Amino acid sequence: MRKVFQADLQQIGEDLIEMSQRVAEAMERAWDSLANADVDLAQEVIAEDAKIDFLQTQLDERAIDTLALQGPVASDLRMIVGSLRMSASLERMGDLARHLAQLARLRFPKRAVPSAISETFSKMAQLDIRIARELGRLLDTRDLAIASQIIELNRELDKLHSSVFQIIAEESWQEDAPTTVDVSLTSRYLERFGDHGVSVARKVTYLVTGEWEPQG
Amino acid sequence: MRKVFQADLQQIGEDLIEMSQRVAEAMERAWDSLANADVDLAQEVIAEDAKIDFLQTQLDERAIDTLALQGPVASDLRMIVGSLRMSASLERMGDLARHLAQLARLRFPKRAVPSAISETFSKMAQLDIRIARELGRLLDTRDLAIASQIIELNRELDKLHSSVFQIIAEESWQEDAPTTVDVSLTSRYLERFGDHGVSVARKVTYLVTGEWEPQG
Repeated sequence: MRKVFQADLQQIGEDLIEMSQRVAEAMERAWDSLANADVDLAQEVIAEDAKIDFLQTQLDERAIDTLALQGPVASDLRMIVGSLRMSASLERMGDLARHLAQLARLRFPKRAVPSAISETFSKMAQLDIRIARELGRLLDTRDLAIASQIIELNRELDKLHSSVFQIIAEESWQEDAPTTVDVSLTSRYLERFGDHGVSVARKVTYLVTGEWEPQG
Repeated sequence: MRKVFQADLQQIGEDLIEMSQRVAEAMERAWDSLANADVDLAQEVIAEDAKIDFLQTQLDERAIDTLALQGPVASDLRMIVGSLRMSASLERMGDLARHLAQLARLRFPKRAVPSAISETFSKMAQLDIRIARELGRLLDTRDLAIASQIIELNRELDKLHSSVFQIIAEESWQEDAPTTVDVSLTSRYLERFGDHGVSVARKVTYLVTGEWEPQG
């Protein structure tokens, strides 16, 4: 019984790592589709998101079965409940990558991202990809130094997000209103992706230390 | 033991109802603060959101303790795991109301919402408030007709959300870029609030029928 239980926990951990790898890839491809107005790539990202959703459903079913069959307590119980939370955050990260791809598709053959803002968004997307990749490493190694790094990457992301609204507020901003909308939503999606990454990192920290990290 | 368990389940149900009532109130007051540029009210909404967060933490602790002490299986187990999901959605609805209040505070003494769009947003906010109130009734009665109603209210909300972007795309839209940003983010917050409401409604439906409703 104990052996089966350890195998279940192991599998849940591996599913989380796989989800984090897939959302890293989804963000990488979504950003490429948006930056290059590549509608085929956008289409692929949108289709692939269903697989991330499926992974979440599968992980959640496994977690619930483990709760039912093994009746875990203490740290094992918290680990499983925590996994349900983390899978929800990772699934949402996949959705946000999909939103970017959907925007690329909606505006095709036009590029949704004006050149004045393209470099900032590129940096934000790179931070998102790094956050998702580091999450995979964090879930694998439970090395809490990685969690701190993720929180730091997200701070940079937040600064870039704020800078987008400063750029839009400048007189030199001459884009039309629908483009301004696209830019503000894109910035929001890129920023939220990082927030969810931080949620997962905090959850891992909590599971390792038993202490909830203060926000900020 | 069984009696304690039933009391725990009852309390978790009541906590969810209280959360839904508080997020309905939060949205009502957040919208008022935004529509009337009422910075004091905005401040109150922001402060009150901490109480919604606290309710979530409390509910989650209770749910985890119940899992540990009672080792529930089958439908009871799914009900408790479902509660963790629902509390996360309700907490997020509170955050979205807070975002609106934060925007009201940021733009004070200016009104963040231009008059051209104010009526649409007012309708969206009313739909959000109704969705949150109906959630309270749904959680209380488990009458699935209410779940269908919530999904219908959210469809109306989505239509209004789309109409916002049509209004912005018209030539008559003469607002400056930062206002356009505020409007697009406000519309997004109002729309997401409804989505989370639908998530909760679908979860209740699943718990009552055992069948997952198709999306849409």
